[in-house]
Amino acid sequence: MSATLRDRGERALLETIRRLLPARGSVLLGPGDDAAVLTRARHPLVFTIDACVEDVHFRRRWLTPRALGRRAFAVSASDIAAMGGRPLAALLAIEARGTTPADTVRGIVEGMRGAARAAGAELAGGNLAAGGALALTVAVLGEAPWRPITRAGGQVGDRLFVTGDLGGAARGLRLLQRGRSIRDGDPAVRRWQRPAARMRAGAELARRRIASAMIDLSDGLLVDAGRLCRASGVGARIELARVPVARTLRGLGAATARALALAGGEDYELLFAVPAERLRALARAALGCPVTEIGALVAGRGVRVVDAAGRMVRVTGHTGHEHFRRA
Amino acid sequence: MSATLRDRGERALLETIRRLLPARGSVLLGPGDDAAVLTRARHPLVFTIDACVEDVHFRRRWLTPRALGRRAFAVSASDIAAMGGRPLAALLAIEARGTTPADTVRGIVEGMRGAARAAGAELAGGNLAAGGALALTVAVLGEAPWRPITRAGGQVGDRLFVTGDLGGAARGLRLLQRGRSIRDGDPAVRRWQRPAARMRAGAELARRRIASAMIDLSDGLLVDAGRLCRASGVGARIELARVPVARTLRGLGAATARALALAGGEDYELLFAVPAERLRALARAALGCPVTEIGALVAGRGVRVVDAAGRMVRVTGHTGHEHFRRA
Repeated sequence: MSATLRDRGERALLETIRRLLPARGSVLLGPGDDAAVLTRARHPLVFTIDACVEDVHFRRRWLTPRALGRRAFAVSASDIAAMGGRPLAALLAIEARGTTPADTVRGIVEGMRGAARAAGAELAGGNLAAGGALALTVAVLGEAPWRPITRAGGQVGDRLFVTGDLGGAARGLRLLQRGRSIRDGDPAVRRWQRPAARMRAGAELARRRIASAMIDLSDGLLVDAGRLCRASGVGARIELARVPVARTLRGLGAATARALALAGGEDYELLFAVPAERLRALARAALGCPVTEIGALVAGRGVRVVDAAGRMVRVTGHTGHEHFRRA
Repeated sequence: MSATLRDRGERALLETIRRLLPARGSVLLGPGDDAAVLTRARHPLVFTIDACVEDVHFRRRWLTPRALGRRAFAVSASDIAAMGGRPLAALLAIEARGTTPADTVRGIVEGMRGAARAAGAELAGGNLAAGGALALTVAVLGEAPWRPITRAGGQVGDRLFVTGDLGGAARGLRLLQRGRSIRDGDPAVRRWQRPAARMRAGAELARRRIASAMIDLSDGLLVDAGRLCRASGVGARIELARVPVARTLRGLGAATARALALAGGEDYELLFAVPAERLRALARAALGCPVTEIGALVAGRGVRVVDAAGRMVRVTGHTGHEHFRRA
């Protein structure tokens, strides 16, 4: 049996964590003082925070501690990618019960440290507090060496693109909810465990001024496309046949696969708009991932999905994840 | 009855919050996109995160929502002060039950916005997630125009100073724990509700290179002095008679008052060390608050409290707040 937080005590565990996180990269002073100290940033900053709460966003048996740490970083860092920024440093606030094994916290920190470093950032510090369910709140600071890409720059006529493929994470989540063990190594489950977080693609789309508007797909294509449209004051037309559906959805009924790909959420791919005059630049860009054209921004409001004949397709369950709201 | 989060739904409430937080100051883009965008910082950055969890750090009846928002900002910003930094922007991650009144969240945001602005910073965004107890996690980004003051720079012979007075917040917390209503307007209760967070003093001590080491007093003088000493590789000698005890402790027994002032915690005053050659600079500095010399850094390890005759004083209950640990 591993020691719990209660056995070990906060201070001893914090000392362990401190040794895991030496100052490096843009972090001049890591954990252990009142605040982390970072180098002066050469560019505008992008700053985001997100939370992963046990039994709301995940269950403990769905992720090893390391995978949970990696995933929590990716979910926050994806917002930096969606601005076209580069992450510099992350802070992790953990809430945990006293009965939580100390090794769980250590694993989370190690996983997050690894994910941050893989993205060119450092885990620079954090906070550990007693709480109910396990909750990880991750703040990520990045820099935007090129003009940040907001959700608001889309224009009528811009083409809509998405990175990677969609629906795999939602499929994995449903398998986990139905009791699938993570030991099976199911590819859809792995897809949920490891969100895309397209750091390189996001930065490249900003650097080459390719995207006019961008958002990451946390709540599903239709919900997030709706957000981009509202911010840009336009509508969108998405061609169903063009939407890149994850391989792991093969074998499911067409309506189920469609609902997962269009409304499932948690893929953390990027959705972005490209003006006609930047399409050639997009074709030349090295984004490090597949990119698929799925439609265009159009006059009006709202997101319409159409089939090959141009008829509107209704997608059920497309409200995406909303906390709190009654069904 | 005010609408709850469940009635209102996350998106409608976020829209309300968005309107409360327009971009201003160093914030080029506020809430509503994937991440906030800040101006390029001219100096090294200081970056910290802290959490306030219901029934761990506070009870709902102890604070109005606005006071809770102010307090949560102050607790995090105090870490920036303790580095000698200036806060630029804060992000607030809220966890709340669906039954939480929407007005509670609004009040928290308004309180935090006000506290941030009073400190020269902006609340730049955040996240709202379903959870169990109400929990506020606040990340604050600041800049350090002058060399950051860590806990580690203290030298043997440096004099030890503290801002303000001590024990008032702990006294207020105990009154609240015993059922005191916040409507009484008890000054000790108000002291707990409004932590000191000495932003001006912290920055001034850094700007004039007065302090060799500094820490904010979250867990009590003895615990936090111990941290400063360990980081600096020295010991400390604190003269009991010099410790500035809060007026609100008058009338308590001497042992109780001493325990609250030396070990109570949550005052969020600053403890700092000053080399002999900087004492005149300290006397001339405009810190905006009282400062009291309470002892000195000495050779060896640990923090000793001595009475007027130089005899060691034992302080009971001086381990400060530690999450998780069994008593």
